[in-house]
Amino acid sequence: MSRSVEWAAHSCLNLTWLEPGRAVRTATLAAFYGLPAAYLNKQLQALVRAGILSSASGPRGGFQLARAPEEITLLDIVIAIEGLDEAFRCDEILRRGPGGRADVDYRETCVLAQAMRKADLAWRRELASQSIADIKATVEHRFPNTPQMTRNRFAALRA
Amino acid sequence: MSRSVEWAAHSCLNLTWLEPGRAVRTATLAAFYGLPAAYLNKQLQALVRAGILSSASGPRGGFQLARAPEEITLLDIVIAIEGLDEAFRCDEILRRGPGGRADVDYRETCVLAQAMRKADLAWRRELASQSIADIKATVEHRFPNTPQMTRNRFAALRA
Repeated sequence: MSRSVEWAAHSCLNLTWLEPGRAVRTATLAAFYGLPAAYLNKQLQALVRAGILSSASGPRGGFQLARAPEEITLLDIVIAIEGLDEAFRCDEILRRGPGGRADVDYRETCVLAQAMRKADLAWRRELASQSIADIKATVEHRFPNTPQMTRNRFAALRA
Repeated sequence: MSRSVEWAAHSCLNLTWLEPGRAVRTATLAAFYGLPAAYLNKQLQALVRAGILSSASGPRGGFQLARAPEEITLLDIVIAIEGLDEAFRCDEILRRGPGGRADVDYRETCVLAQAMRKADLAWRRELASQSIADIKATVEHRFPNTPQMTRNRFAALRA
């Protein structure tokens, strides 16, 4: 998985601590952690395409969450950034084995591919069970200063 | 994950259908699916280092399973080939955020990294629950001709 998932997930989380209606520009989100703005912007655009963020132009423009943190799972973010590829790469080598046939989809019939897919589904199920709201609640419980510190840094970077 | 995992897992599975005591050379294992022998050999050596295969030189030399198929899980094979890296890459960007500290290991304390790790563990748990013996039993149930076809191809490639 690329490091962009870390950037995207932390950016979404930080946006939950903004005052309502407030949007943040790419440059500010990038400066928050010292990330390369052009590359982060590509990830932010991917989040917009996935319906996780919305973006607006103009003097008060920028990015904000497009839906409630309860409705954004870690799986949503991973898929927005990394796509739907499974971890296990099946090149259907069985097709070249004994009895291999051109008309069979071995990604579906191969017992090993099925076993790998079962593990992939367990991973996705776990990511789908955790929302940005869950992460936010755990952070606020363990690190009560984080929301205010996040707003302060956003304000300082905007100034 | 690299395609080598597919190669390694199918090679281990095919070795379960060999006559007892019989070893198979890299060239034969590679020719079985038309794989590049030099690259497959690197994966076979990794499986030897992990204690999954044993190798012997000499006229009857080659690779065989180093332990019972019940004692080889899919996770063992994935770790032998891919190492222990987790899917989620945490570069500890929190260190550069507000209140970030040089002496904290954010891979451990970050709530997002912990959530990603929970999903990674679900994936590993599922892979660890499936052995090569399980895969072999399912294949033999669904495709009863596979063991004999595998032995026949090994014999033809040796001839």
